[in-house]
Amino acid sequence: MFTNHILFSGLSEPELLTLKSHMVTKDFGKNEIIYLQDDEIKHIYLVRSGWVKLFSETVDGEESIIDILTTNHAFGYQSVMEGTKISHSAEAIEKSTIIMIPLSKVRELLSSSSVFSMNMLKLLTMKQKFRDREVEHLSLQNSPQRIGCFLLRLCNSDDNMNVDIDLPYDKSLIASRLGMKAETFSRALHKLKDEAGVHVKGGSVNISSVAKLSEYCCGSCSSSFPCEDVAEEAI
Amino acid sequence: MFTNHILFSGLSEPELLTLKSHMVTKDFGKNEIIYLQDDEIKHIYLVRSGWVKLFSETVDGEESIIDILTTNHAFGYQSVMEGTKISHSAEAIEKSTIIMIPLSKVRELLSSSSVFSMNMLKLLTMKQKFRDREVEHLSLQNSPQRIGCFLLRLCNSDDNMNVDIDLPYDKSLIASRLGMKAETFSRALHKLKDEAGVHVKGGSVNISSVAKLSEYCCGSCSSSFPCEDVAEEAI
Repeated sequence: MFTNHILFSGLSEPELLTLKSHMVTKDFGKNEIIYLQDDEIKHIYLVRSGWVKLFSETVDGEESIIDILTTNHAFGYQSVMEGTKISHSAEAIEKSTIIMIPLSKVRELLSSSSVFSMNMLKLLTMKQKFRDREVEHLSLQNSPQRIGCFLLRLCNSDDNMNVDIDLPYDKSLIASRLGMKAETFSRALHKLKDEAGVHVKGGSVNISSVAKLSEYCCGSCSSSFPCEDVAEEAI
Repeated sequence: MFTNHILFSGLSEPELLTLKSHMVTKDFGKNEIIYLQDDEIKHIYLVRSGWVKLFSETVDGEESIIDILTTNHAFGYQSVMEGTKISHSAEAIEKSTIIMIPLSKVRELLSSSSVFSMNMLKLLTMKQKFRDREVEHLSLQNSPQRIGCFLLRLCNSDDNMNVDIDLPYDKSLIASRLGMKAETFSRALHKLKDEAGVHVKGGSVNISSVAKLSEYCCGSCSSSFPCEDVAEEAI
C-alpha cells in the first residue's frame, strides 16, 4: 500500500482518502519511458511493483544512472518544490506498475499539512545523506570495493558465512549504477573473487564470508556493515 | 546578513527577530574543528565569512571532502530532521566567522511556519539536484574535465576570452573535493593545459577561451555552461 511510504506516514484518514481519490495507477512495459529530462511533469511517482531507473544523458549521449528503484520507492518529488521541469529521465527497466499522484494535490497537502511537509523533509534529508555517502564511495573506494558494498546492501545484517544472493537486475545496469564501464566491472568482479571470496555466476552470487567482504570494503568507507544506508535506500 | 539566505527568505519580522535573539556568532581559527562526525550538534550553521570544509573519514583514516563552503552557505541543517547526530565533520580551513542558530529554535519555527518549512524543502531539493550532478560527473567525466568544470563554475556567464581567475582555496583541497589524489590532479592540470588552453600557476588560472573549455568539459555532462548549478552552489 502507498500509505507505507515515509511520505504518507501519520497523515489523517481524510488526507489519505483525498490523495487516493486523485491517484492513478499505470503499467509501464520494459524499457518504456515514464518521463524525460526537462519534461514538465504533473505527478509524483511511487513504484508499486517492478524496477525503474532514473538517469541523465550527457551532451555526448552517454548515460549516467542516478538511481534504480523498486517497490515503495518514490521519485519525481523534487518537482514539488523546484517547478515542474525535471532534471533527470525515468524509465521502467522491467514491466512496472507505478502509482501517480498529481503534483497539484501534493502541493495542496504540503501547504495544509505540517506532518506531510515534515515527511518530505525527512525523505530529502535521508536521500542527501545517502548521496553524500555515494560521493564518498566514488572518491575513495576502488571498483571491487564499490561492487562489494553494493552486494553487502543485499545481505541481511545477521548474514554470516556462505551467503547466496540473486542480483536484483542486470549486471550492465549495476555497472552503470556504480559509475563503471563494462570492462572495469568485469575486471573488478575477478578481483573481488580473489581478494574477498565473492563468486558471481550469471545473476547468482555466493559470498563465502560476509565478515571478509565487509572487511575488504568498509575500510574505505566512513561507515561499516551493517550500515544505516541499507535501511535508507528503501525510500 | 543571515536573512539573505534562502532558508530565511519571506519570514516575518517577529520570526526573524526571535531567531536573531537566539543566534550566536563565533570565530574559528584555521584548521579548527566546528563539529565531528557523530557529535550531537545543537545548532545549524551559516558561514558569515571564511571557508569551511565538510568531510567524512573512512575507517582506514582517509578523508573525503563532501563540500567546501563560504559566505552565506548553511550547514548542519540535516540534523533538524534526522536527530542531532551528524554524519560528517566540519572544520574551518581559514579563519572563519560562523553564525550558529539553536536547533530547538529552528525546529519550533519549522512546526509553526510553513514558509520556513518550504524554504527548507527548497534548500534540500537544490542540494539534491546538485549532488545528482556530482555523482554523474564522478561517473562520466575524466579528471581534467572535472577540474575544468570546477573552474567554469568560478567564471561569470558572460566571460569569454582570456579570463583570469584566482583559485578560491588550496590546490590539495580542490583535488580532494573533486575526489582525486594529488598526482592525478597534477597530471590532469597538464592535460587541461594541452587540450583546453588552461594555465594554472600557483593560485592563478588563465583560461584562454571559456568556449573551448566548456566544449571540452560539458560534452560529458547533462548540462552545459553557464549551467544552473553555478547559482545553486551558493546555498
